[in-house]
Amino acid sequence: MPRVFNFSAGPAMLPLEVLEASAKALVDFNGKGFGIAECSHRGKEFDGVVDEAVARCKTLLGVGDSHDVLFLQGGATQLFNTIPQNFAVGKTADYVTCGEWGKKAAAGAKEVGAKVNIVATSEATNFDRTPGDWKLTPAAEAAYLHVCSNETVHGHRLPELPTHDTLIVDGSSEFMARPHPMSKIALLYGGAQKNLGPSGLVLAVVRKDLYARIPEKGLPKLFNFKLQAEAKSMINTPPTFSIYILLETFRWLERQGGLAAMEQVNAAKAKLIYDTIDGSGGYYKGSVFDPAQRSHMNVTFLLPSEEKTDLFVKEAAKNSMVALKGYRTVGGIRASIYNAMPLAGCQQLAQFMKDFQAKNG
Amino acid sequence: MPRVFNFSAGPAMLPLEVLEASAKALVDFNGKGFGIAECSHRGKEFDGVVDEAVARCKTLLGVGDSHDVLFLQGGATQLFNTIPQNFAVGKTADYVTCGEWGKKAAAGAKEVGAKVNIVATSEATNFDRTPGDWKLTPAAEAAYLHVCSNETVHGHRLPELPTHDTLIVDGSSEFMARPHPMSKIALLYGGAQKNLGPSGLVLAVVRKDLYARIPEKGLPKLFNFKLQAEAKSMINTPPTFSIYILLETFRWLERQGGLAAMEQVNAAKAKLIYDTIDGSGGYYKGSVFDPAQRSHMNVTFLLPSEEKTDLFVKEAAKNSMVALKGYRTVGGIRASIYNAMPLAGCQQLAQFMKDFQAKNG
Repeated sequence: MPRVFNFSAGPAMLPLEVLEASAKALVDFNGKGFGIAECSHRGKEFDGVVDEAVARCKTLLGVGDSHDVLFLQGGATQLFNTIPQNFAVGKTADYVTCGEWGKKAAAGAKEVGAKVNIVATSEATNFDRTPGDWKLTPAAEAAYLHVCSNETVHGHRLPELPTHDTLIVDGSSEFMARPHPMSKIALLYGGAQKNLGPSGLVLAVVRKDLYARIPEKGLPKLFNFKLQAEAKSMINTPPTFSIYILLETFRWLERQGGLAAMEQVNAAKAKLIYDTIDGSGGYYKGSVFDPAQRSHMNVTFLLPSEEKTDLFVKEAAKNSMVALKGYRTVGGIRASIYNAMPLAGCQQLAQFMKDFQAKNG
Repeated sequence: MPRVFNFSAGPAMLPLEVLEASAKALVDFNGKGFGIAECSHRGKEFDGVVDEAVARCKTLLGVGDSHDVLFLQGGATQLFNTIPQNFAVGKTADYVTCGEWGKKAAAGAKEVGAKVNIVATSEATNFDRTPGDWKLTPAAEAAYLHVCSNETVHGHRLPELPTHDTLIVDGSSEFMARPHPMSKIALLYGGAQKNLGPSGLVLAVVRKDLYARIPEKGLPKLFNFKLQAEAKSMINTPPTFSIYILLETFRWLERQGGLAAMEQVNAAKAKLIYDTIDGSGGYYKGSVFDPAQRSHMNVTFLLPSEEKTDLFVKEAAKNSMVALKGYRTVGGIRASIYNAMPLAGCQQLAQFMKDFQAKNG
């Protein structure tokens, strides 16, 4: 079958090369007579996969011995619970909320009884900007500052990360879509299902000095970042095949030229659609106005009516562009254009938007 | 590549038909132009996968509206924590330990502060039998009785499940390898990576009346069985591709004739190896002596020396039989012969054992 341009917000489009190599390894791994999902996580075949995945991850991120690379389960949502359980005991956890996911992260911390301070939120203006007037907890009482660097639902991104001695970043929806300034980041984590692989796998890159903050009691071993690091993410059986797909994605990212190269092409892709929105005389309405704060991953915009939105989605699907419907609570259109979306997909969408407006404007 | 006979204890051998169908769907799902790992868990394609997987699971288990089928993350290990958090608050949780995994389940309950009663354990005799003299908690104070029906490390199984009004069964290593008497079971759960699919996915079949016992506060939404059931296992993004592989396994199981048919062939497979052990005049020593309590999934035995054990593993590998090395704390040989292991694999292993003894006896 010819591939469509799949604008799904996640689980999302993956590079065809990654899918084909993974499909092959699922049936047979390097001529061994068994697939990579069929062998022990403690055997030499999978050990090689994990070691290579960790090494490539560090190379792509440009990070050395300061951080550990962990492969966890339960999605970013589970980490919303476990991060404060590890790192905020007896202190206040600071959260900036620029959208749905920042809000969920803060709610997850409250679920496990953490003391949460909402430093700033743009909810009053429907998450259309980075909120101003940050009220940080005094350093002596602060556990960390948590930000979600790209908001999938509301189409916002932080152009630059704030400076904080313990900065925790939910990077789910822009993981490896641009370089991450790891020297500023204490913990970078995210679900794999946007830019990196299938759902059910969380990549977490942890600065080792954080381990000293983990409480000695009361935290199940499985949720303890330090113990997971010591066990090479194998306190229990990790999602081995998902990690294999991640490795194939890392290999693919290196073939594309790494994260700086991805940032360039992603910026060009996003510009095609934002330029079309801005040139539509108000027919298409973007949800974030400051160009620097517009997500390069999730381009969200509204049409003049719900009928036109439905027609847009339907007509686009007929033209091999699928999964453009906006998030259920927001409506409109959301074009998720992660690493795997080729430039041609965004060119075709931009042209389609112009044609659609000409016909239905 | 020709397939080898893969005796890995888990992640383990899967049916080739399952792997091939899953590999195909990874690259393209039903001619849609995208793979099944690339579409939204809330879209119609994956919705169809989940609905079919739940329906087939219920058909295979012969269970109706009394139970919900959940797809969870974090392995059985995570459920060792969350089961008592859901169902043992304010009560005592009873555990029978017939091996490593029953022991781990009890330890997981203690990790989250549950009051645990070890009803009986065979640890003193190295888990070679079902322990006698069960000291159950009085019914009014008891939360549930937990058993691990097949012990992967020690090769023990419970031929019949005990009767208890709230029986919780870790069935990881014999899930759907024989019929499960669901009318006796309040909660049957297990990691998929033995008989059902890849690691990173837990199948849990929960009797709905248990939900009334879940505490109203203090439990993160993600770990709440009732809320997961209401959300169709989608409080967060489930491991979609792993669930797809599970569905292919269910289809395959139905083509084999269902669980009663699997039980028959699994019994025949196990008998081939146990008969060889029993006929070896003590050269091979089994670890469980009561034939009824011998695992049909994990056949564990010792050779006269460590050198001979190493040679056995090496020679077997040359003959296309891999992953026979026993668990690290136990030594010896472990032949895991889950559903996907064909009868021919056990015939070949039995013959190899005889030949090896003749040469090295």
